[in-house]
Amino acid sequence: MRPYEKDPKAIYAESFATVAREADLTRFPHGLDKLATRVIHACGMVEVADRLAFSEQAFRKGAAALAAGAPILCDCEMVGAGIIRRYLPAENPVIVTLNDPSVPALAQTIGNTRSAAAVELWAAHLEGAVVAIGNAPTALFHLLELLDHGAPKPAVILGFPVGFVGAAESKAELAANPRGCDFVALRGRRGGSAIASAAVNALSAGLPELVA
Amino acid sequence: MRPYEKDPKAIYAESFATVAREADLTRFPHGLDKLATRVIHACGMVEVADRLAFSEQAFRKGAAALAAGAPILCDCEMVGAGIIRRYLPAENPVIVTLNDPSVPALAQTIGNTRSAAAVELWAAHLEGAVVAIGNAPTALFHLLELLDHGAPKPAVILGFPVGFVGAAESKAELAANPRGCDFVALRGRRGGSAIASAAVNALSAGLPELVA
Repeated sequence: MRPYEKDPKAIYAESFATVAREADLTRFPHGLDKLATRVIHACGMVEVADRLAFSEQAFRKGAAALAAGAPILCDCEMVGAGIIRRYLPAENPVIVTLNDPSVPALAQTIGNTRSAAAVELWAAHLEGAVVAIGNAPTALFHLLELLDHGAPKPAVILGFPVGFVGAAESKAELAANPRGCDFVALRGRRGGSAIASAAVNALSAGLPELVA
Repeated sequence: MRPYEKDPKAIYAESFATVAREADLTRFPHGLDKLATRVIHACGMVEVADRLAFSEQAFRKGAAALAAGAPILCDCEMVGAGIIRRYLPAENPVIVTLNDPSVPALAQTIGNTRSAAAVELWAAHLEGAVVAIGNAPTALFHLLELLDHGAPKPAVILGFPVGFVGAAESKAELAANPRGCDFVALRGRRGGSAIASAAVNALSAGLPELVA
């Protein structure tokens, strides 16, 4: 079998160098360039850089929220599993409510998916939180509905739901941003939990692998 | 805000219908068409169908192994988190060794990454297992090395490592298949834990959302 790179530092350095060489990150404000790099690294597609939408303050607000101890609200267990705990600046709580026992009945009550019902359980944690959605368009749609009805604003919404029904639409609604809430979103069908986790990890620590 | 689909059954039906409409799955043997559908659904990209490599018996062998109670060996926690437990036919164990306390020292000893070292801990479970690799190219490379040194064969290797260093190369080595081990792999840089989990879920249950 051919030889392959086995040194983690060399792998990270070469990975991030490939992103820097192939992706045009010049349009990103400070910090968001690192978030874009981690997102690209998570999915192996340099071209997603061109589909990232964001508010100017998204990185600063999200990083500051984490530094101040804000919780991270995730729409599914996979997003939570991808958050690198040792990078979190304040042992931030990672909250996933999808499998709370109350969720199935709540979904029936509100006439929406379990993913949307799980968002209702975020209420007490929402103000100033970092929200990371990497799976369900209905979770993002329902969060935006709750904000329209006066729910407290998170510090930043990382919008990366994936798929063919509602993913592109929910992210377009987030990026239109009539609510004035800081956000990062990947336009279109693509997304996923690994990308959402990568965005959180960028807010936590940038690219620490390059200096470690 | 615009209305959106909130019914889970309708969302699944429309999602899978979109895949059926846009992707050409005619080249896939029975079962692998469902695996391809779940993989596409997990990443929102119909075009990955054209990059899926597989052995003819991969679905049959993988599904039979799970039905017989085989364990599922995952290279990272995210892959494990994405496996839908209620679809597993035999309450199959889902094993992730990456965070075993012995792994960092073992990585030093073998001069490879933690992901590769974690694969060494699969030894007792490897024979007839379903292997799902959704993150680290070094995990796949090292598994293939162990097989070359006589390790017992898994029933099927689901190869979906992602990224810019070794992902394409490790999957090409898997797909060349000099070891005669059943496999599914997504050629190129793309991959990821959600895709690897989706492949396992397909082996477990096909597309049960369409008949539930």
